[in-house]
Amino acid sequence: MDRKLRMGMIGGGKDAFIGAIHRIAANMDGLIELKAGALSINPEIAQDSGRSLFLESDRIYTDFKTMLENEANMPADKRLDFITIVTPNFAHFEPAMMALDKGFHVVVEKPITFTLDEAKQLKAKVEQTGLTLLLTHTYTGYPMVKQARQMVANGVLGKIRKVWVEYPQGWLSKLSEREGNAQAAWRTDPKRSGKSGCMGDIGTHAANLAEYITGQQIDKLCADLNVMVEGRMLDDDGSVLLRFDGGAAGVLMASQVAAGEENALKIRVYGEKGGLEWAQQEPNTLLVKWLDKPTEILRAGGGNPHLSSYATHNCRTPGGHPEGYLEAFGNLYRNFALTLQSKIDGTTPAPEALDFPSVSEGIRGMAFIDMVVKSSASTEKWTKFEI
Amino acid sequence: MDRKLRMGMIGGGKDAFIGAIHRIAANMDGLIELKAGALSINPEIAQDSGRSLFLESDRIYTDFKTMLENEANMPADKRLDFITIVTPNFAHFEPAMMALDKGFHVVVEKPITFTLDEAKQLKAKVEQTGLTLLLTHTYTGYPMVKQARQMVANGVLGKIRKVWVEYPQGWLSKLSEREGNAQAAWRTDPKRSGKSGCMGDIGTHAANLAEYITGQQIDKLCADLNVMVEGRMLDDDGSVLLRFDGGAAGVLMASQVAAGEENALKIRVYGEKGGLEWAQQEPNTLLVKWLDKPTEILRAGGGNPHLSSYATHNCRTPGGHPEGYLEAFGNLYRNFALTLQSKIDGTTPAPEALDFPSVSEGIRGMAFIDMVVKSSASTEKWTKFEI
Amino acid sequence: MDRKLRMGMIGGGKDAFIGAIHRIAANMDGLIELKAGALSINPEIAQDSGRSLFLESDRIYTDFKTMLENEANMPADKRLDFITIVTPNFAHFEPAMMALDKGFHVVVEKPITFTLDEAKQLKAKVEQTGLTLLLTHTYTGYPMVKQARQMVANGVLGKIRKVWVEYPQGWLSKLSEREGNAQAAWRTDPKRSGKSGCMGDIGTHAANLAEYITGQQIDKLCADLNVMVEGRMLDDDGSVLLRFDGGAAGVLMASQVAAGEENALKIRVYGEKGGLEWAQQEPNTLLVKWLDKPTEILRAGGGNPHLSSYATHNCRTPGGHPEGYLEAFGNLYRNFALTLQSKIDGTTPAPEALDFPSVSEGIRGMAFIDMVVKSSASTEKWTKFEI
Amino acid sequence: MDRKLRMGMIGGGKDAFIGAIHRIAANMDGLIELKAGALSINPEIAQDSGRSLFLESDRIYTDFKTMLENEANMPADKRLDFITIVTPNFAHFEPAMMALDKGFHVVVEKPITFTLDEAKQLKAKVEQTGLTLLLTHTYTGYPMVKQARQMVANGVLGKIRKVWVEYPQGWLSKLSEREGNAQAAWRTDPKRSGKSGCMGDIGTHAANLAEYITGQQIDKLCADLNVMVEGRMLDDDGSVLLRFDGGAAGVLMASQVAAGEENALKIRVYGEKGGLEWAQQEPNTLLVKWLDKPTEILRAGGGNPHLSSYATHNCRTPGGHPEGYLEAFGNLYRNFALTLQSKIDGTTPAPEALDFPSVSEGIRGMAFIDMVVKSSASTEKWTKFEI
Repeated sequence: MDRKLRMGMIGGGKDAFIGAIHRIAANMDGLIELKAGALSINPEIAQDSGRSLFLESDRIYTDFKTMLENEANMPADKRLDFITIVTPNFAHFEPAMMALDKGFHVVVEKPITFTLDEAKQLKAKVEQTGLTLLLTHTYTGYPMVKQARQMVANGVLGKIRKVWVEYPQGWLSKLSEREGNAQAAWRTDPKRSGKSGCMGDIGTHAANLAEYITGQQIDKLCADLNVMVEGRMLDDDGSVLLRFDGGAAGVLMASQVAAGEENALKIRVYGEKGGLEWAQQEPNTLLVKWLDKPTEILRAGGGNPHLSSYATHNCRTPGGHPEGYLEAFGNLYRNFALTLQSKIDGTTPAPEALDFPSVSEGIRGMAFIDMVVKSSASTEKWTKFEI
Repeated sequence: MDRKLRMGMIGGGKDAFIGAIHRIAANMDGLIELKAGALSINPEIAQDSGRSLFLESDRIYTDFKTMLENEANMPADKRLDFITIVTPNFAHFEPAMMALDKGFHVVVEKPITFTLDEAKQLKAKVEQTGLTLLLTHTYTGYPMVKQARQMVANGVLGKIRKVWVEYPQGWLSKLSEREGNAQAAWRTDPKRSGKSGCMGDIGTHAANLAEYITGQQIDKLCADLNVMVEGRMLDDDGSVLLRFDGGAAGVLMASQVAAGEENALKIRVYGEKGGLEWAQQEPNTLLVKWLDKPTEILRAGGGNPHLSSYATHNCRTPGGHPEGYLEAFGNLYRNFALTLQSKIDGTTPAPEALDFPSVSEGIRGMAFIDMVVKSSASTEKWTKFEI
Repeated sequence: MDRKLRMGMIGGGKDAFIGAIHRIAANMDGLIELKAGALSINPEIAQDSGRSLFLESDRIYTDFKTMLENEANMPADKRLDFITIVTPNFAHFEPAMMALDKGFHVVVEKPITFTLDEAKQLKAKVEQTGLTLLLTHTYTGYPMVKQARQMVANGVLGKIRKVWVEYPQGWLSKLSEREGNAQAAWRTDPKRSGKSGCMGDIGTHAANLAEYITGQQIDKLCADLNVMVEGRMLDDDGSVLLRFDGGAAGVLMASQVAAGEENALKIRVYGEKGGLEWAQQEPNTLLVKWLDKPTEILRAGGGNPHLSSYATHNCRTPGGHPEGYLEAFGNLYRNFALTLQSKIDGTTPAPEALDFPSVSEGIRGMAFIDMVVKSSASTEKWTKFEI
Repeated sequence: MDRKLRMGMIGGGKDAFIGAIHRIAANMDGLIELKAGALSINPEIAQDSGRSLFLESDRIYTDFKTMLENEANMPADKRLDFITIVTPNFAHFEPAMMALDKGFHVVVEKPITFTLDEAKQLKAKVEQTGLTLLLTHTYTGYPMVKQARQMVANGVLGKIRKVWVEYPQGWLSKLSEREGNAQAAWRTDPKRSGKSGCMGDIGTHAANLAEYITGQQIDKLCADLNVMVEGRMLDDDGSVLLRFDGGAAGVLMASQVAAGEENALKIRVYGEKGGLEWAQQEPNTLLVKWLDKPTEILRAGGGNPHLSSYATHNCRTPGGHPEGYLEAFGNLYRNFALTLQSKIDGTTPAPEALDFPSVSEGIRGMAFIDMVVKSSASTEKWTKFEI
């Protein structure tokens, strides 16, 4: 391929957290350039944001429909390759469907849609169009998460028995949504966020991570969701007992009222012969615990001969040069870009490049939200995980 | 007091794990001397063990009844002050009752008895005799656990919302009870261990720790116990959702099949203003997380002005000289001994000395076992914690 | 500014380690675009590398002189703003001088030149031209390093007494330069690397970090350099006692034969009232130790109110989203870019943007190399640090 | 042996730090009982201390000479086996010589004497009498330190190239000796402490640890001692470059003005094939770093099959039950006691029991003090280590 891929962005104007992250992730490896944006529904913010990102003035839009219409008619040497959607949850579905209809590949921030039904429609659309969709479940972009998945898949731990996954944050310990915190405001509002707060926002990441690493799927669950801060409209905390289809038992804990915690996603997996431990805040280390020998410290790093090709493919530097959240996010974009390049060039992508989350993960995430909300309201212990 | 306290021991012969621990704990501070023992029902082991501990030959016994009869008739300057019982679970109740009847104070290894009913009888006996009983829930002997309890009690964290307590071990990842491991054999045998394996052995420690630190009691729970190793007779793993009487929600995780883990008891508690984290394998550190300022690393150490008197009272050295499991165990014995000294001298013990686990904690432990077994068998989500 | 800055690159063809790092760092924030390159003196590699980076074919060069000549004549809307030089050490000086002469700003990988004398000439040239030079001492780009410097400057630790800085690597534990390792080959070759190996490569980073954080300069030193691997031509290990002009005493340890270490740069600084500890492999944490209160864990994160503006300016994400080596490198480029934007726009850069290493740091680095080599050969204990 | 060993103690009255530590260490394993003491030269403190330790009134003394005279004449069934000396440094030599002359084995706190010459005389006396002397260099009593020594000795790391040992404390960051701190007062007083402060007190521990683990001896050194706190009479900080007789190069750093540090002794050793890292404040872990495979976490624990017999012999509990400083100290006493038992019983002690520090280590410690003081005053770089 002899050019960068061209990206358009919907949402992500100035001061939006996740839009900036997507742009850094897309920029990092020099494979993608941002060429158009409907960055805000506020025209002033849209213009300011577009200019500060050096967009050409006629490719700065204030509504996504106009953008998709216009851009669909661009000549081949200017036409966007894909659209990134970073609006609040309720506004993912419509632009994603329209972008696919117009022939653009799509990147969408998680959760994929507002409802499970939308997610199913989106999946059908992706399958029908043959286009590629990236769902940015960031945490599976970390090299040591990929290493963990490969080690489980290769059977070195034996059959997996236990999964403990936890995601404590503390930033919603107060009623910040009433104190001018815009992030808090939409994420705790059922009209914009969906039927779950904490479980939708971070519980889905934890569930995705557990299924990704173990290769097993949640089969039934028992949830206890809580509203810990008086006056809040959605759960800000919850715990879930899990049973997986491969026989493992597990616990998923997520909280946004774990005062003093930042973003402490962590997973532990135990099999018959050993266990794994990975923590997002020190992501370059994977502890490998063995029943019959000392614990090993596996470390991320390009060229590390002790790592799976899935791990080293997702490293940019040798060991000891810490890569972090932005690189993990960048890995999603890089793998998506490599896949698009292959499609455009008519070649076959490497399996490592194809390893990124998409609509299936999105559907399981939406179903997870439905199931934990249903279970939490039930007096029955177990709720079957059904899609 | 002008002499050491005199201890007799039931159980704890050569090669028994916990008996040796009790002796080190009792020896450490020079307040107690072992003077008699029915250390094994095997006469040869009883004799060998007694001699190796330098007991006088006429105070080495092979059955506890003879010992208690004989020792009860010793003159005042030789008479035992208390009896330590370190037999397997099923053999705690009878010697404890008899020792109390003979006027001896009692130390008993946890779980306090084989059944909840026995525990209640024992409590009645303690109250009737006015004697003192120490239940060796070791982990509440650590200075930073005491610090945690005091910080919660003093309200510096605000109202407690969340409790996560976990106790992973890996030593039962194989069917070791069939491979000549004596510890594994009795602990996985319902006739000797009781109706629960993992939850009885280590889940009770975790529950005790959570109640001790939070000052809240479990009000209802939802348990999922598992037998992970085929052929095992008792649970070797389990997870429990918790609701406390003070409003906190929690999760208790215990496993003996977490391959590669040693004895990784850990607790996290979160309140409105901050959180605490303590891990048994690095016990001299208490992380104090704050909503509005940087996390602090509180460190154990005699004379540390930032610690509660309950913490410093239980340190023997200044900061940086790590104290561990044996000192935590020793703290139980030291506080018990200080309490007995006060009783003998007719003085009032310091509140710090009185802070050790006893029959009430024993009864809650037995009830916890009953409740998690009951809940695990139920299709109802919540089981009320009843004694 | 209404466009990205335009970068040309000398060196950094395919498979070169540091060139790729510079490109990621420059790409990350969307402020810079690579437009021309003399990426290798091997024409085939130069072409391949240029094409894979999507350079226009007439801006792919095989020698830097042609590139600088040609590019100097480009029209304003295509003209490069700056040149990045990532050749081996011996080939920094000539292109840097020429680039400045042609009116380009310059980024140069450290060490700045091959000899101290060259560094002085380069400094004179920078001052004469009024252009801006960035020397990529990466480690001062980390937010928590900036935080450390500000805390020392603000006096919260009192007068600084001690500095311990260490930089262990293990990658030269064998004679890898004879086994086909290209990185090892040039770095251990005095003709390409200079008069020192380990001290030139990583000792200079450690010295720079110590001077940056303390705000003190090395006044005299006592060095012990070693060749640990038989057959090697340059030092692969060394230790240096330090005295600083502000009264601090220190130790600098650097080794490339610390088998099993990755890139474990770490610094500790102690003043009258407290100390700081920062480690490159976990760069988002700064331990702040106090004489009179518990140690605090300061954590990187945009918007963290406990951090200096110099730290938060260099964060892209909130706490708990680990940023790493590439972001630290990116901070150098971002601050350099913000400074160039201000120059171009005729505005005044923020002091936080101006905080990047340049020729003065380069000269001190070259002098450090001279001094440690001189001291190591001397029987005198102390060697005065002279430029 | 059918009785406990009988100990007498010189020094160590109420409120003395190290005397209490020695008693806990001696008590712990039930092999030793304290039977006599000249615990203070203040008669009131001596009496109070003796009574609180339950000594018989006629074995509480106020001067050591009377004690040694009296106790030497006790009948065999009461006679002391050994004398522990825990007075300040200047008062070690005389009681040690007299105790040996009277036929008692000796335990002496480090540094062994006040001068190197005294240490040599003491060595001659030990050799002449055939009695046993334990020098309490605590840190070599840790199981993972023994493991480290055995791994080096077994060659698994290859030839040792580098040793970095550090011992930061912060407790003398102020002029505490003028503020009523008794510990600080004698330790900073050349009349009671000797010719070095920091290096005598903790530098000797670091040097001993380095020689013990590597099996190499310091051959020459280059020291820089400092008085950081104005008004102090002895060094409170220092750094030393080291060369060992086996070819290793090293650095020793010790400071008592590292504000905010507790007792952070740490050692790293690197050989051709790998490295070791051990830190006293988390003593149950030994990091084993490898050139060609992932770092391993070796953990202390009785019965751990991955450990040397020298390590497991010095563990009392299985892995995960942290043992600390008091157990390390207890290991010195336990091995000393096992050696005395063998002497008394006429058997041969196990090599693991004989592995405790004695007069040779004491002499090297005194010589280390002499050499660093001499080197620090010299303008020559290297000072030969001579005894």
